[in-house]
Amino acid sequence: MTIRFSRTSHFWISATLVANLFFTTSPSLTNADEGMIPVSSLNQIDLKARGIELTAEELFNAQSVSLVDGICRVNGCTGSFVSDQGLIITNHHCAFDAIQKASTAERDLLTHGFMAANLKEEIPAPGYTVRVTEDSIDVSDKVLAAVNDKMTGAERAKAIEQRRKELEIQAEKEHMGLRAEVAEMFAGKSYYLFLYTYLKDVRLVFAPPASVGNFGGEVDNWEWPRHTGDFSFMRAYTSPDGKSATYSPENVPYQPKRVIKVNPAGVLENDAVFLLGYPGRTVRHQTASFLQYERDLRLPTIVELYRWQISVMNTAGENDRAVAIKHATRTKSLANVEKRSRGQLQGIGRAKIVEQKIAEEEAMQKFIDADPARKAKYGETLSNIAKIYQEISTAAPLELNLNELRSACRAASYAWFIVDAAYERQKGDIDREQPYMERNWEQSLASLKVSHSDWHRPTDAIMLAGMLDRLKRTPKSNEVAPLQTILAGNDLFAISEDMMTATKLGDWAFVDACLKSTPDQLKKVDDPLLKLVLDLYPTYLRIREKNKEREGRLSQLSGDLIDIKRLFLANQFVPDANATLRFTSGHVKQYTPADAVIKRPISTLQGVIEKTTGVDPFITPEPLLKKYAAKEFGPYLHPELKQVPVAILYDTDTTGGNSGSPVLNAKGELVGVNFDRCFEATINDFAWNADYSRSIGVDIRYVLWITGIVYGADHLMKEMGVNQ
Amino acid sequence: MTIRFSRTSHFWISATLVANLFFTTSPSLTNADEGMIPVSSLNQIDLKARGIELTAEELFNAQSVSLVDGICRVNGCTGSFVSDQGLIITNHHCAFDAIQKASTAERDLLTHGFMAANLKEEIPAPGYTVRVTEDSIDVSDKVLAAVNDKMTGAERAKAIEQRRKELEIQAEKEHMGLRAEVAEMFAGKSYYLFLYTYLKDVRLVFAPPASVGNFGGEVDNWEWPRHTGDFSFMRAYTSPDGKSATYSPENVPYQPKRVIKVNPAGVLENDAVFLLGYPGRTVRHQTASFLQYERDLRLPTIVELYRWQISVMNTAGENDRAVAIKHATRTKSLANVEKRSRGQLQGIGRAKIVEQKIAEEEAMQKFIDADPARKAKYGETLSNIAKIYQEISTAAPLELNLNELRSACRAASYAWFIVDAAYERQKGDIDREQPYMERNWEQSLASLKVSHSDWHRPTDAIMLAGMLDRLKRTPKSNEVAPLQTILAGNDLFAISEDMMTATKLGDWAFVDACLKSTPDQLKKVDDPLLKLVLDLYPTYLRIREKNKEREGRLSQLSGDLIDIKRLFLANQFVPDANATLRFTSGHVKQYTPADAVIKRPISTLQGVIEKTTGVDPFITPEPLLKKYAAKEFGPYLHPELKQVPVAILYDTDTTGGNSGSPVLNAKGELVGVNFDRCFEATINDFAWNADYSRSIGVDIRYVLWITGIVYGADHLMKEMGVNQ
Repeated sequence: MTIRFSRTSHFWISATLVANLFFTTSPSLTNADEGMIPVSSLNQIDLKARGIELTAEELFNAQSVSLVDGICRVNGCTGSFVSDQGLIITNHHCAFDAIQKASTAERDLLTHGFMAANLKEEIPAPGYTVRVTEDSIDVSDKVLAAVNDKMTGAERAKAIEQRRKELEIQAEKEHMGLRAEVAEMFAGKSYYLFLYTYLKDVRLVFAPPASVGNFGGEVDNWEWPRHTGDFSFMRAYTSPDGKSATYSPENVPYQPKRVIKVNPAGVLENDAVFLLGYPGRTVRHQTASFLQYERDLRLPTIVELYRWQISVMNTAGENDRAVAIKHATRTKSLANVEKRSRGQLQGIGRAKIVEQKIAEEEAMQKFIDADPARKAKYGETLSNIAKIYQEISTAAPLELNLNELRSACRAASYAWFIVDAAYERQKGDIDREQPYMERNWEQSLASLKVSHSDWHRPTDAIMLAGMLDRLKRTPKSNEVAPLQTILAGNDLFAISEDMMTATKLGDWAFVDACLKSTPDQLKKVDDPLLKLVLDLYPTYLRIREKNKEREGRLSQLSGDLIDIKRLFLANQFVPDANATLRFTSGHVKQYTPADAVIKRPISTLQGVIEKTTGVDPFITPEPLLKKYAAKEFGPYLHPELKQVPVAILYDTDTTGGNSGSPVLNAKGELVGVNFDRCFEATINDFAWNADYSRSIGVDIRYVLWITGIVYGADHLMKEMGVNQ
Repeated sequence: MTIRFSRTSHFWISATLVANLFFTTSPSLTNADEGMIPVSSLNQIDLKARGIELTAEELFNAQSVSLVDGICRVNGCTGSFVSDQGLIITNHHCAFDAIQKASTAERDLLTHGFMAANLKEEIPAPGYTVRVTEDSIDVSDKVLAAVNDKMTGAERAKAIEQRRKELEIQAEKEHMGLRAEVAEMFAGKSYYLFLYTYLKDVRLVFAPPASVGNFGGEVDNWEWPRHTGDFSFMRAYTSPDGKSATYSPENVPYQPKRVIKVNPAGVLENDAVFLLGYPGRTVRHQTASFLQYERDLRLPTIVELYRWQISVMNTAGENDRAVAIKHATRTKSLANVEKRSRGQLQGIGRAKIVEQKIAEEEAMQKFIDADPARKAKYGETLSNIAKIYQEISTAAPLELNLNELRSACRAASYAWFIVDAAYERQKGDIDREQPYMERNWEQSLASLKVSHSDWHRPTDAIMLAGMLDRLKRTPKSNEVAPLQTILAGNDLFAISEDMMTATKLGDWAFVDACLKSTPDQLKKVDDPLLKLVLDLYPTYLRIREKNKEREGRLSQLSGDLIDIKRLFLANQFVPDANATLRFTSGHVKQYTPADAVIKRPISTLQGVIEKTTGVDPFITPEPLLKKYAAKEFGPYLHPELKQVPVAILYDTDTTGGNSGSPVLNAKGELVGVNFDRCFEATINDFAWNADYSRSIGVDIRYVLWITGIVYGADHLMKEMGVNQ
């Protein structure tokens, strides 16, 4: 494959550069285990002191195959290759959308689970892609060469965006078949070009029933102790000649360069573990003003909006399983964010994070002001950032609701995509917004189609009415003329019902035809929702422009902030998570979430039985109960607990995107699959705290017990090289 | 006082008799710590093995003063005399009604707490009584002599009732000034006559703000870890010559025979503790058929009914503090039972108690059937009991709702009392229902008046409408003619509103006049609610009669059940709780409520601070926060935790009625005040389980820190003999 050469050459060079920038053992970090470390910096940390028996080179070696070659990104999640035939283990919740899409009320894979007896039976997972990191190159200088201090915020944001696109297009030309993406490491400061093998034929292999894979549902989500078998198996395919290709029956399993070894013995309390994965986003380098905006405005708004939408969808699906299935992915995803947001709100309050940040920034401001040169350069950095968040806060009530109108109401989101695409695709490729560029267009359309297949008219009418009602109660809505007209109506529900009855956006053929139309042609189409979005389009564009303006200003100020922070702390630190490959380590460890409460780090099958009520989300399937009653535990009993372990708790530093990450023992063998954090740890996205930062994984012993013993998937056990 | 002689003589004799009957160290008990042991049986257990340094005689000595003389019953709770001037420590929730009645929106003692600077400032607590157990006499033979096997169930129940009344009246004549009550120990089998000093002038001395005394509210109720300062001080008064008397400014503090010593050092984990108190009711000797009725019918109905009433009252009080205060006691009490009922439902399911009982009864049935004589006598005992519960279950939907109509709708309860009293008080004293007998009439009227003072018309209209709606949905309601008429109306809410607007029952003068009327006079009164209840009266009487019939049959069968159980288990056991004085012991001890969770047995002030959000029920008053910030902890820090302990957890066997019980150390010194059980332990009322049976008390160190240091009640500290 062409990949090999490219990778080793570039990666080696960049790794040395990265080392200086990402050095992580700063005394300013509250705990040695904080930090999602870019793999290129692993040679800078003391792995032995962390209890890991592998060397940095065995984990990541730019010149030969190493452990990271066995790790992949599965949409927004992480996966591990556990066989040389592209078999991937990831979370049930990561495969959830694929399971849902393959389900009908008659053949309900969510309820009953799924096992392909052979390759032929594996089910294509529409909208799924798999990436394997092949290379990363520091392109900070190239990106920042595109900007100068005279630019306005919007000019700056656009210049950076443009340069990133250029670098991506150029890299994809140079490395045919690979996907290129420029990631911002430190905001406004450093940028890396990542090259990925990008696989587009992904299939579902094995999923336990949701009653196992999602046991405890939203009640237990973000909670420990957990008793969820949150795992599934998928498989990546390539064309017969090993190239990335969309689904075709002729495709063959992808052959990863490295297979992660599954260790059925699992772990014990206090064992060292580490994770590799693609953590999505943390905001630990942000300012107090940002945190105040999150605490006082954005998070509470999200909680309210999502709660309402979840309850609408739950009601709609109550007596109709087909409708419930249509809403399943969306409900699950909103519920997840809603509860996480509540956890974060609680955490911001309890841990006094805003107060801490303010104190920290006051000290930093004193440091700045103490030196005239520093004061001249950085004296107003913090206050200028605060001003922008003040602006954002003022605009938030209208902007958050306008955004949510387009998100809660799915038909409005289709209309938005159609209108935006029509305008954008008139431009030159490089000038377009990302989704409409040629290199992304195919995947954007695929995603739209996937979302469209779940459309449910009655729910969408309620969502539209609810968002119109919220906009009616938002004072600044009257500054938006098309809104003024529609909100003047007395019965918003009737208006929404009428629009939803009249719109043809529920018909894919209609959407498809619209997608081939110019803006002028669209204006002649008689469709009330399309018309509403066309009317609102100038407003949306103004907001987008305004956001770019703020983004550009923030980008420059954030770069300055990182500079002054380095001077102030006299040290280096780890960049925030940005969905690029990271390493994190810790130990299997209990914790004290509250006064007088201790939570032990390994949950067991006994707990599954205790929680089982027979009422959703605490149902346990018959086959499991039978094997439990018959005491058929195979070799999977914990030596001290004398129970099959179900989930494990460890103090590594993770965030969303680490879902599906392998939990690896000191030797780099897979002993679990990461799927969540405890409620108190949701605040980690904002600030690290070793006391209650705990991540949760499903124990490999439960994975193998369910797969091999309860559901008898002997062929998968054999493929993974596990003897029962 | 006349009490002494009576007490020593009778008690001594009865104690010997009791010993055989209540011997408790039966191997059939799952744990040595199970059992609420009658104090007269203390000489039959190994106190030393339980870690208690006092002898049985020091705890209870019929011939001289002993520890139990320092314990009293305060309405449905327990209290301890902690000074020789009648100062009582009990729970905040036990004094709650007194605090509420003394509160107005302007002078809100619930919110702000209360401290009397001297005796004069103490506030009378209307409706409160204090009892001190003076004697108990086995009267089983006398009671059972009143019945024979030819009686119908109703005849049997009435004969027992009549004999109990006769014995009570006779005893009160013999022991002037004492209150007599016959308690059923084993149903249908054994009866004891208890004699009480009965004090009717009780006053409020000190209550912390509800934000301390009820910290955590319904969220934390029945939960551990707990951070509630659930304590208050009251005082009992007598006439100047030491006799029981209703409130008068001339009254003087009651002088108890024994004062319970307060030990400010508190306890450590694993220390032995014991409680003395008046546990209300357990049903561990009941059958599987009873449990099935509870699980399938009564408990779920209660949960639904109470949830609804709580939400009605919460809504009514949302924006009106005066209305919220009116509803406070009732809401709190319903919420308490509602959550306990949910805990019990969960516990019955999880602990498989019905299944266990069924297995136990099957084994017992085999034992019965194995011997022809036994079979002839007891062969159908269990199945006959089951038949009665089948009858009760069939009748339950109508009967539970008719009962609740009279309870949810307060005006209907006043009407019921008026009508029932009018009919009952025409009879001879001994033939009346208990509340209308001369010896109870004064207290019954006092209770009615106390309840009447909280009447709130709009809430009562909603309650009436809600109950009528439930009755409309109850199939058998159409067999009740007056209901048929009223339920034929289309708009039940309008009907209820009209009745509530028209009724004069909200006016105490009207109620008072009605209470002096005969049934015939009442029939002429023009009041829609009174009319409804008069119309329903024959139905209620039929239900009462039916219940007596069932009660009589059950009583006889239960007696047989105890006999056969003794033969089967070849042992003795402890009678169910029945609001008489009991002893229970255990240790300060952590527990594991669920897989991978450990709850430690001492909570601390740190936890109060962590839980404080500033939003009800997690508000913490300023004076507390100030003392915490200033680290003014006095001598109250736990030696290892280095924090002020707030609450303690111990594995003694308690139930409702043990609220306010002293938690006593090995030497019998007060180290806490019992106020709750953990959620898992609510099932204790049905079956004991040592693993998760835990009771909760407020730590004496928190009591003294709040009273002495936070609120500076130096005079109370001095009165209790505590040096700060």
